[in-house]
Amino acid sequence: MILKFIILSFYIISSVNALWPLPQYWEKGSKTLLISSDFSLKQTPETGSLLNTKTKKILESAKKRLLKFITFENYTTSPNVNPIVPKSIDKSNLLRVLIISVTTDISELELGVDESYELTIPESQIDNDPITAHLKAKTIFGVLHGLNTFSQLYYYKNSKLLLPFAPHHIKDFPRFSHRGLLLDTARNYFPVKDILKTLDVMSWNKFNVFHWHIVDATSWPVVSESFPELSNKGSYDPINMVYTKDDIKKVIEYAYLRGIRIIPEFDMPGHTHSIAESMPEIMTCIDVQPNWSNFSAEPPSGQLNPALDQTYTFLHILLPELTSYFTDKYYHAGGDEVNLHCWNTTPSITEYLNKNPNSSLETLLAKFINETHQIVRNSGKLPITWQEMIVDHNLTLKNDTLVQVWTNKDVVKNVVSKGYRVVTGSSDFWYLDCGHGGWLGNNTNGNSWCDPFKTWQKIYSYNPIDGLTDQEAELVIGGEVLLWSEQADRTNLEVLLWPRSSAAAEVLWSGPYDTSKKIRTPDRDALARLTDWRFRMVERGVNAEPLQPLWCARTGRCNMPY
Amino acid sequence: MILKFIILSFYIISSVNALWPLPQYWEKGSKTLLISSDFSLKQTPETGSLLNTKTKKILESAKKRLLKFITFENYTTSPNVNPIVPKSIDKSNLLRVLIISVTTDISELELGVDESYELTIPESQIDNDPITAHLKAKTIFGVLHGLNTFSQLYYYKNSKLLLPFAPHHIKDFPRFSHRGLLLDTARNYFPVKDILKTLDVMSWNKFNVFHWHIVDATSWPVVSESFPELSNKGSYDPINMVYTKDDIKKVIEYAYLRGIRIIPEFDMPGHTHSIAESMPEIMTCIDVQPNWSNFSAEPPSGQLNPALDQTYTFLHILLPELTSYFTDKYYHAGGDEVNLHCWNTTPSITEYLNKNPNSSLETLLAKFINETHQIVRNSGKLPITWQEMIVDHNLTLKNDTLVQVWTNKDVVKNVVSKGYRVVTGSSDFWYLDCGHGGWLGNNTNGNSWCDPFKTWQKIYSYNPIDGLTDQEAELVIGGEVLLWSEQADRTNLEVLLWPRSSAAAEVLWSGPYDTSKKIRTPDRDALARLTDWRFRMVERGVNAEPLQPLWCARTGRCNMPY
Repeated sequence: MILKFIILSFYIISSVNALWPLPQYWEKGSKTLLISSDFSLKQTPETGSLLNTKTKKILESAKKRLLKFITFENYTTSPNVNPIVPKSIDKSNLLRVLIISVTTDISELELGVDESYELTIPESQIDNDPITAHLKAKTIFGVLHGLNTFSQLYYYKNSKLLLPFAPHHIKDFPRFSHRGLLLDTARNYFPVKDILKTLDVMSWNKFNVFHWHIVDATSWPVVSESFPELSNKGSYDPINMVYTKDDIKKVIEYAYLRGIRIIPEFDMPGHTHSIAESMPEIMTCIDVQPNWSNFSAEPPSGQLNPALDQTYTFLHILLPELTSYFTDKYYHAGGDEVNLHCWNTTPSITEYLNKNPNSSLETLLAKFINETHQIVRNSGKLPITWQEMIVDHNLTLKNDTLVQVWTNKDVVKNVVSKGYRVVTGSSDFWYLDCGHGGWLGNNTNGNSWCDPFKTWQKIYSYNPIDGLTDQEAELVIGGEVLLWSEQADRTNLEVLLWPRSSAAAEVLWSGPYDTSKKIRTPDRDALARLTDWRFRMVERGVNAEPLQPLWCARTGRCNMPY
Repeated sequence: MILKFIILSFYIISSVNALWPLPQYWEKGSKTLLISSDFSLKQTPETGSLLNTKTKKILESAKKRLLKFITFENYTTSPNVNPIVPKSIDKSNLLRVLIISVTTDISELELGVDESYELTIPESQIDNDPITAHLKAKTIFGVLHGLNTFSQLYYYKNSKLLLPFAPHHIKDFPRFSHRGLLLDTARNYFPVKDILKTLDVMSWNKFNVFHWHIVDATSWPVVSESFPELSNKGSYDPINMVYTKDDIKKVIEYAYLRGIRIIPEFDMPGHTHSIAESMPEIMTCIDVQPNWSNFSAEPPSGQLNPALDQTYTFLHILLPELTSYFTDKYYHAGGDEVNLHCWNTTPSITEYLNKNPNSSLETLLAKFINETHQIVRNSGKLPITWQEMIVDHNLTLKNDTLVQVWTNKDVVKNVVSKGYRVVTGSSDFWYLDCGHGGWLGNNTNGNSWCDPFKTWQKIYSYNPIDGLTDQEAELVIGGEVLLWSEQADRTNLEVLLWPRSSAAAEVLWSGPYDTSKKIRTPDRDALARLTDWRFRMVERGVNAEPLQPLWCARTGRCNMPY
């Protein structure tokens, strides 16, 4: 008897759409429509005449992608949604058209561009017309998000494409305007095609910034026309493991068509050992062994020498060239983990300090940062810096400088209290590389400072504005998940990124609060949906990790109450 | 001055071959040979006439694989080995033949079969004959290992296949005779082709047992002719996610040609919920919700009912059929995590206990185990059981029963002290699935009992005979790395398996002691070699995770002293 009672008291798992990230506002019904085999995407005549060459190209490319999904995506494995196939198929349940309307022809994809959209899918015909969905947005970038949302609403079953829960009414907009993913392509190299695929998956998750940590101490894969030796000597392979100007252009264009900005990072003055492969004369503490740890956070050590005129001569040629390769308004100038002990043990620097009695290591650092930032500004860009410049070195930078925080919430508070805008992503929550142990070979137990692995639940629980006042929170323009690539390359890229980055994507788009202002938790609000979204990503060819046994994913009967 | 001194005192990284697992005995020289474009594999006339149909087939298949590697493997990325291309190519440095000789025609691949081999590669011609390598073994299975060793000795450079460090003299044999990898194909399904690929990579790493944890509570993918409903109702998909008799035959044959035994596990009486999908009448505590944790280690709960006659009737038909699908002498009968509370709350069982005053839950368990093991024995097999039957339930089983230990060294000691032979693989060291957090959705922090991730260093530091006397150690016949698949499927299989399983493979083959009887450590003895081996596996098409930035892999200059 006891058993019977217990057996009957199982959870009722409600069928849910797998929308991920969850829209800000979503009303839905209970009717299942079918997507017609002649389903088409149209735009209003006003939209057609409004769009310019650029926005038209974005629209055509997005339409093509959606139709390709509709044609080829056989998402039969949805664990949580199992719509009933309607008995008869006729005009009363066939969705035949999605009409797109855009009200501006803004084509510049910049921080804060309007990304909102409204998607309406009725449950029945009006005046005997075919059932018609409507997508409205102020900009073409909102349209992109709307189409991606639409692409998560249907399921393939019995050779039919079912769209359950009609009518739908979705009004959606992002919580944060900077929703980024950092990929480090210097510690290990990633082929361009892997970057492009990453951009695809990012766009489905409504990320809008690819932070391209493109060079570092270990390699310099960017081909410079002014200094070809940088990559000839500093890349892992000057033929097969570099990014040419054309590669970069291709990446930017591909990202633009998907509503993603490319922000490059050329980290300086630390993390620059790869420059020493071709220009040792402007570098110092080059690959110190075995005590590199006194000179840098990781091997190989090496920093630009800020006391030499030729360092600046070099940067005045190189940085304008590099900035010209990229189209975004922002340029990440690096600035993390500068090692002052390195400079303090460099003869030419101590000599400089002796000659200039008002100078110090800190004024030298300030000089370097100010000068490089000025070059960036002269190139028409705004600089981004890592937090250290503000909180460790107490530099006073122009307050339109964007500051990226990678440690904890106290640092976020510190930086915004100084009036800077912040992009955040804590190593305790959003470092996707952690948890694979040390890679220096000096620890039999394999521990690493950034253990443990950041589970999707941990990632989902991160609040970028934790502990801030509303006023302070306004200065946090967004966040980034970060994949440093000491132990990552193309072999494990997708497994490390997905679906964990999706958890961050929802925090940045509409999380972590639900409509009743309660913090969403993994168990109550996310697991079933994320599982479903993960299966759809797999169906689209992404090696996203499974979250549960398939039995659990299908039944929801392993989800313990929190 | 200080800096200069430090810069000069870097490590000298010696060039090493990437042999993995390291042979027991290996003498090498310093000459670089070239593998001739007409390189061929031959056998001695005696070998040719000795081999029977089976062993001949193994040999031909292995020769084909090696020649395919030699033809298509462009292993140019070796980080640590950079042989100098000889200036001239002539008879004095061209390796043209490898001659194989086998001294017995043993074709049965069973526990303890001789796997030793001796490989000799001279550095020069003898009597003006072409340079000829020799591979000698007592069995064809030794030949397989020898050919795999040979396939790690050469490097592709400037369109040439270089074989450095000649002359080579390798005498090799395994430390343990059972070197296994467990794959759980029930929590999530793995297509046959992924199993075959896993077998390939296993053979390169000299594993010789694939422990096929083929069914579990969540799914029953094995197609039974006697009880087709088992998989029709209990598999994830009766068409696309099952293993037919033919599939199993294919896997066994593929493994046999690579020197790998297939040991199936049909876990009973716990972990059997999937049987309830078709035969609820012989099951109890079926999918208890929400308090499944009182009835099983994981959802869904469900155990075979040992008090019912029809349970045994079922097993007397099913088990002989299942054992007949497999060829190995051993059959894993499961036996882990039996929940007595489940049985104690089952009316038919308490009724049975009341009717049989000398009975108890423990005697009922003993009856079940003895009866199923007897069926296994009657089918000509020897049973393997999980440790619980011996250490938790104190059953006395025939002492040729093999016991698999999954917890700690104390349990190994306990089991061998009772005279049983042991296969071990501790969850603290060799569970490849750990460290991805919980999957039940009830923990925002995502923790799991088996955190953290087992790094390759941790895996490498495991000693299967830790704390045992020499006599006790003799009863440990080997070990297994284990991939439970709650959070694994084909998307992340290779990344989770490789190269971490390689670390275990070396422990089982020749580790953890070096020739001077010192414990090998990751930093001093393994990192550079494993990195190199990982690159070769990647070159062969395996998504094995990177261990370091490529700069470090190439230079060795990130490897800190232990």
